[in-house]
Amino acid sequence: MTEHTVTAYDEELRALAGRVAEMGGLAETLVNDAVTALLTQDLDRAHRTILADSRLDELQQDVEMRLIRVIARRQPMGQDLREIMAAGRIANDLERVGDLAKNIAKRVIAIDGDFNASKAAFGVEHMAELAMAQLKAVIDSYTGHDAEAARSVRERDDEVDALYTSLFRELLTYMMEDPRKITQCAHLLFCAKNLERIGDHATNIAENVYFMVTGEQLLEERRKIDETGVTDQENA
Amino acid sequence: MTEHTVTAYDEELRALAGRVAEMGGLAETLVNDAVTALLTQDLDRAHRTILADSRLDELQQDVEMRLIRVIARRQPMGQDLREIMAAGRIANDLERVGDLAKNIAKRVIAIDGDFNASKAAFGVEHMAELAMAQLKAVIDSYTGHDAEAARSVRERDDEVDALYTSLFRELLTYMMEDPRKITQCAHLLFCAKNLERIGDHATNIAENVYFMVTGEQLLEERRKIDETGVTDQENA
Repeated sequence: MTEHTVTAYDEELRALAGRVAEMGGLAETLVNDAVTALLTQDLDRAHRTILADSRLDELQQDVEMRLIRVIARRQPMGQDLREIMAAGRIANDLERVGDLAKNIAKRVIAIDGDFNASKAAFGVEHMAELAMAQLKAVIDSYTGHDAEAARSVRERDDEVDALYTSLFRELLTYMMEDPRKITQCAHLLFCAKNLERIGDHATNIAENVYFMVTGEQLLEERRKIDETGVTDQENA
Repeated sequence: MTEHTVTAYDEELRALAGRVAEMGGLAETLVNDAVTALLTQDLDRAHRTILADSRLDELQQDVEMRLIRVIARRQPMGQDLREIMAAGRIANDLERVGDLAKNIAKRVIAIDGDFNASKAAFGVEHMAELAMAQLKAVIDSYTGHDAEAARSVRERDDEVDALYTSLFRELLTYMMEDPRKITQCAHLLFCAKNLERIGDHATNIAENVYFMVTGEQLLEERRKIDETGVTDQENA
């Protein structure tokens, strides 16, 4: 294989990873916008978030086409194959994160109420901050090829799940106290669930980054909370 | 290319499609078991459903490895490439269907109550029947390479969404009438949402079958119900 060929191949892999990183940045923005729209009841921002999600779908299709082309042309093995497989799987998780952000944005419109003043806002905000921190950290671990950072993301998923379980119960309590809040709280339950699932996707990505970098699986079973939250590996 | 090579290639494609069809059958079984466990409050069956889901994950990984191997060895184009891409995407959707079935099964355990006698059972059962019919029809359209059957599945997704929206409202009404039912109804809300998402995955699969068979996209925008249900393309 000539040096020229190797360089072109490296360039293909770099371009693929670049697209995945671009998806990561966009997914972060979508989640942040959806949550901000929810906390401030900003319907304009919610509408923009819904529209922006289609770009993430386009990028995922682009990643898929690049994957097929590079596998067909280069018959990758070992480390290169791991990079390519990780790119495809991570793109898949990021596209789903975008769908979940879009769903939160749609619920902003469905709620259309004085959420800002509601007692539940604090819990949702806290959970959103943690889920977004997880997403940011795992994208950084991907671009930095940092297996240890990926492992930490996975370990912190328990915190997201614990917050979800606590918020689930809190929202049910509000429903019981004031039946007029039931519709609003039902939408918030789904928003909380979406944030918990975004945390799960961050964990999936972390496992793929770890495997990509080290060639080893993070095997130990994740300890997950499984009570009313029913969170265990739903989207693993 | 010798005839022997062509035959081996055909065999690889057939084996790949066979694995995807196997995943389809298993996904149907998991959804059916989860829904039966819910309607009969059969905790044993719920536990078995949760355990059985891991087989679907294994099969998806097997499909992924076969895909990479066949793309690297054969550099597929045209119809072959469409078959291969469809197999990968459909396997992905089926794996997610399995996760949703597993989540319903977990909620059977979380509810652990007299659901059979509840008013909501009828609505859930009706929605489950339609979602399962969609899943079965789309898997048949895949194995039969039937583009028109795939198109019908996609058109019937509106019915699943309409049932979901109606069930969502019904469950909120039960919550308002009897606050002691709020926790049970919250779990049922998520079960209904899971069934709606299974319908969305059937629709995604239908679009991939149509493209695989015809080489054309089902382009017209799907008309979706988007009121309290917030169902539009969440998982598209």
